[in-house]
Amino acid sequence: MKATKPFSDHIQFLKNEIENAIHQIPLEKTPAYFYDPIKYVLNGKGKRFRPILVHLVGDVYSSAPEKIMKAAISVELLHNFSLVHDDIMDEDDVRHGQPSVHKKWDNATATLAGDGLFVLSHSIITGLSKYIHQRFNEVTLAICEGQGMDKEFENDDSITMGNYLVMIGKKTGALLGLCAELGSLIGNDSKSDGHQLFEYGLNLGLAFQIQDDYLEIYGDESTMGKSLGSDIRAGKQTALSILARENHRDKWLEFIQKNDSISAYKAFFESNGIKAETETIIQHYIQKAQDGLNVIPERNRAHLNQFTTMILNRTY
Amino acid sequence: MKATKPFSDHIQFLKNEIENAIHQIPLEKTPAYFYDPIKYVLNGKGKRFRPILVHLVGDVYSSAPEKIMKAAISVELLHNFSLVHDDIMDEDDVRHGQPSVHKKWDNATATLAGDGLFVLSHSIITGLSKYIHQRFNEVTLAICEGQGMDKEFENDDSITMGNYLVMIGKKTGALLGLCAELGSLIGNDSKSDGHQLFEYGLNLGLAFQIQDDYLEIYGDESTMGKSLGSDIRAGKQTALSILARENHRDKWLEFIQKNDSISAYKAFFESNGIKAETETIIQHYIQKAQDGLNVIPERNRAHLNQFTTMILNRTY
Repeated sequence: MKATKPFSDHIQFLKNEIENAIHQIPLEKTPAYFYDPIKYVLNGKGKRFRPILVHLVGDVYSSAPEKIMKAAISVELLHNFSLVHDDIMDEDDVRHGQPSVHKKWDNATATLAGDGLFVLSHSIITGLSKYIHQRFNEVTLAICEGQGMDKEFENDDSITMGNYLVMIGKKTGALLGLCAELGSLIGNDSKSDGHQLFEYGLNLGLAFQIQDDYLEIYGDESTMGKSLGSDIRAGKQTALSILARENHRDKWLEFIQKNDSISAYKAFFESNGIKAETETIIQHYIQKAQDGLNVIPERNRAHLNQFTTMILNRTY
Repeated sequence: MKATKPFSDHIQFLKNEIENAIHQIPLEKTPAYFYDPIKYVLNGKGKRFRPILVHLVGDVYSSAPEKIMKAAISVELLHNFSLVHDDIMDEDDVRHGQPSVHKKWDNATATLAGDGLFVLSHSIITGLSKYIHQRFNEVTLAICEGQGMDKEFENDDSITMGNYLVMIGKKTGALLGLCAELGSLIGNDSKSDGHQLFEYGLNLGLAFQIQDDYLEIYGDESTMGKSLGSDIRAGKQTALSILARENHRDKWLEFIQKNDSISAYKAFFESNGIKAETETIIQHYIQKAQDGLNVIPERNRAHLNQFTTMILNRTY
């Protein structure tokens, strides 16, 4: 029996192939005002786990490798377009460990660079099916809606967990869903399979995002790459603060007036059942993600199960 | 013999049909942060002459009316996307007689609204041919490059007339070219016809833009909708100032130090042959535009000749 290479080697192999394909996108030299920031973004240290997901699903469906790569690169560029514009809107100055485009250059340059990445993402999928184009556009619209909701929710303390789930589903989940869906649609025109795989990615995205909020309180700084409690202290909406406000409003409002330490947050969330409730919600979405994979015969599901674990354990 | 309705009635008819189609684009109500500015833009007072051009060429090729309308609306949304983002980058506060999006809301809102218009423009052409998608993307990339060049050229006094023509060709001409090209490609898959009609629109755009620079010195304020000499006084690159700098550098640099009146500009451009040279260049591009129409049998060319006249006489 042939020894199977570890999954991490396979991921590294796919990542290298994806990086090569990204660097082979033909880009002019001039105008440098337009192309230099685009190259800066494409040379950034993204984890590429969206295009990796397109490949993993595409392989299950024996999709044509060159079409898988087109879809993979296209979603990665779409993701980068949204990051560049979101960083302007959210005034985030660091992205993938380097200055964001609007910080290194300025807002005008970053607006145009994002537009360029968007055009390129469309150029690359030109020729794939009408339905793939339709889904690509529907999900892009959802991403814009999610960003619009995120902006609307800033400083609005009437936001419910339901609102929050819709927002992160559109802003983060939908693109992961699209990645899994495209991988299947390229090899198999079953919209139903595509839909199930979209649900896998969407729910994985929701679990990941809520877990992110959880880990910024209960994780460790080295894994999270940011100081613990930074979002919640800055008054950003997180799953835990929304649950606290929704279910224990007066106690929570009094608490945040008086407390600022991570250990106090931990104690509050534990004693009020919010830690346990968040864990339950995360497990719920992990289960829904796994249900989405049932459309794939069990013998072909190993890589996607390993991918799920890798994402949720943040071992990428 | 049946009396033909005046051309202006036909244009008004097309414009109404286009407005109706734009208002029938299905748009959600929420998030209002995202959709309200998009609706504001689509309800603006654009002249719609880009989608009108798609229809005029489409009619010549007996293209399917519903596909013509899709292409027409799609280019209009693409145009609006680029205006919303350009207005942010260029800090232009008025568009079609009302506050631009970033002025009425803010830069973040306008960035997202532009993105949304871009997504919608793609949603609408989904299902048209691969080649139409390819041309749509190529021209969108050209528009971004043109905007990048325009930003690069600001305050660069080494810009030549050649640089300027490339820039306005990409920024303004290419989209008019695409309008004429799409009108033909929908009814007829001859890439060669499409190419000729692209040349018509491109050169009409160049003639229009250079004429715009000319009329801001030699026109009247009511037609131009802005005070005469405003661009040239603000130090913006215009065809006349570039020709002056390129061919009479020392005299021009001395002149602008000392003079600021429209009558002085007029006298300078006349006595140095720049007025005549600009007129020659405009005529050159009008001729090239008309040459592009030769691909259409003369008996079918009337509306496009009338459109050319309407655009250049600014009687729309």
